[in-house]
Amino acid sequence: MSVLIVGSTALDSIKTPKAENPRLLGGSASHAAVAASFFSPVKMVGVVGHDFPKKYLDLYRKHRIDLGGLQIEEGRTFHWSGEYEVNMNNRRTLATELGVFEKFSPSLPDAYKSAPYLLLANIAPALQHHVLDQMWKPRFVIADTMDLWLNIALDDLLKLLKRVDALVLNDSEAHQLTKADNTVEAARLIHKMGPRHVIIKKGEHGSVLSNGDGLFLCPAYPLRKVLDPTGAGDSFVGGLIGYLASNRGPAEKNLRKAMVHGSVVASFCCEGFGLTRTTKVQKREIQKRVREIEALTKF
Amino acid sequence: MSVLIVGSTALDSIKTPKAENPRLLGGSASHAAVAASFFSPVKMVGVVGHDFPKKYLDLYRKHRIDLGGLQIEEGRTFHWSGEYEVNMNNRRTLATELGVFEKFSPSLPDAYKSAPYLLLANIAPALQHHVLDQMWKPRFVIADTMDLWLNIALDDLLKLLKRVDALVLNDSEAHQLTKADNTVEAARLIHKMGPRHVIIKKGEHGSVLSNGDGLFLCPAYPLRKVLDPTGAGDSFVGGLIGYLASNRGPAEKNLRKAMVHGSVVASFCCEGFGLTRTTKVQKREIQKRVREIEALTKF
Repeated sequence: MSVLIVGSTALDSIKTPKAENPRLLGGSASHAAVAASFFSPVKMVGVVGHDFPKKYLDLYRKHRIDLGGLQIEEGRTFHWSGEYEVNMNNRRTLATELGVFEKFSPSLPDAYKSAPYLLLANIAPALQHHVLDQMWKPRFVIADTMDLWLNIALDDLLKLLKRVDALVLNDSEAHQLTKADNTVEAARLIHKMGPRHVIIKKGEHGSVLSNGDGLFLCPAYPLRKVLDPTGAGDSFVGGLIGYLASNRGPAEKNLRKAMVHGSVVASFCCEGFGLTRTTKVQKREIQKRVREIEALTKF
Repeated sequence: MSVLIVGSTALDSIKTPKAENPRLLGGSASHAAVAASFFSPVKMVGVVGHDFPKKYLDLYRKHRIDLGGLQIEEGRTFHWSGEYEVNMNNRRTLATELGVFEKFSPSLPDAYKSAPYLLLANIAPALQHHVLDQMWKPRFVIADTMDLWLNIALDDLLKLLKRVDALVLNDSEAHQLTKADNTVEAARLIHKMGPRHVIIKKGEHGSVLSNGDGLFLCPAYPLRKVLDPTGAGDSFVGGLIGYLASNRGPAEKNLRKAMVHGSVVASFCCEGFGLTRTTKVQKREIQKRVREIEALTKF
């Protein structure tokens, strides 16, 4: 089945201690859509400016991403630049130029409104609401978020939590949202805010799913070298919902396997700048790492 | 089969944001010996002063720990006091009074020298060497260590690494020892220093085993509340070697299961101050959490 993904489509300039990479294809929707495309047909909603390179449109198309919902507006594409420290765990934003993203109001083509799987990738909660309002009756809705929205749009976010099946956020955000230091306790408190499924990402330490079946500890694929973690979280949730949509039966039944597949796509994302590695991944490479994770956790 | 454990036997005064607990039973050997005792007969080597409370000797005996190697010397027992911050991840040492530990030179009773499993729990590498020198031919030797020895006794430690089957250390220590930021890479570099098995502890994020079979990602049992993590690492390695010694066949074959059992004992350790929770654990509670970890990682 098809997945609808809405989020940011951006150009990322990424500095690490060893390299500088200007104007890579980036944004939460880009990473998530490419990740999901390995498993299911993807429809993407986003906005870019007239400066958006044609080669990136071609890259989306190579992944058979339906661009009927990608608005191309007069003005410049959202541009983010950031810098990572040596250990790749801390990053700081050098500049954020919103460009056409500033006035983005996602409007869904009719063919999009019936998509059964919806990923509200990381954008302002108000825009996530606006997309949900246009949908007919999605089977499974996942929302991603970030600390920025906890700081400046908490009310919108709290309302959103009552409308989604699953919330994905990282551990520091979970602690900020709940004031609980402990991940298990934070998940319990987030359930009370709405979502039946809470997924807390812990970067290189993997992720935790909490739902009616209890907890699931999903490992991160152990990498010897991380080149650029930008977009890893988006790739994770994109791979996750793409895998969900590719399987029959209730989403619940496949969530654990879906997380492992998301985790594997995220591991590839970390091995290249921007989407350079992810867009070269073969399906069988993903399946190989999934089997490896199985072996890595067996006792 | 029996396990010989050498390490520190101490009184710990532990302050957390919520409580103060003076002169609890502590030390690396105490935690490890109690943890191992759930699975195998334990012989302990350590030193205490005349101030060492009889109730703690009784506690060792309750766990059928052979105290033939516990020296009782004129003077005061090693006393450590420390304070944890709110999130329980950072602690600072308030005072270290070595007492009789300062001149400790472990001398093994003859009956100890043939023990097949040896845990060199966290003490100075020179003392770990001194114990190894007295052993006949242990089947499997694990060494634990800490940042202090990396700072002040690195040469001794590096020599020790050539004499042990397994090294256990935490992630920040592994990074300090190898100058590698990445856990997988750090393990690879530590293998080159000697040990066939490298176990890197990551606190609440579990632990990683690296050996000829590749990597094993061992989860930490997810706790909703951590009361006092002091001794969790010692409990982990104690439970690990106790479980190894309780099983037939090559140690290698049982290492993964042994880590999970160690991880579970460590989880109980965190639920009480000092050894108060661990010493009340029932074997079936351990087995229940092992099964739970199995369920938590299944996908």
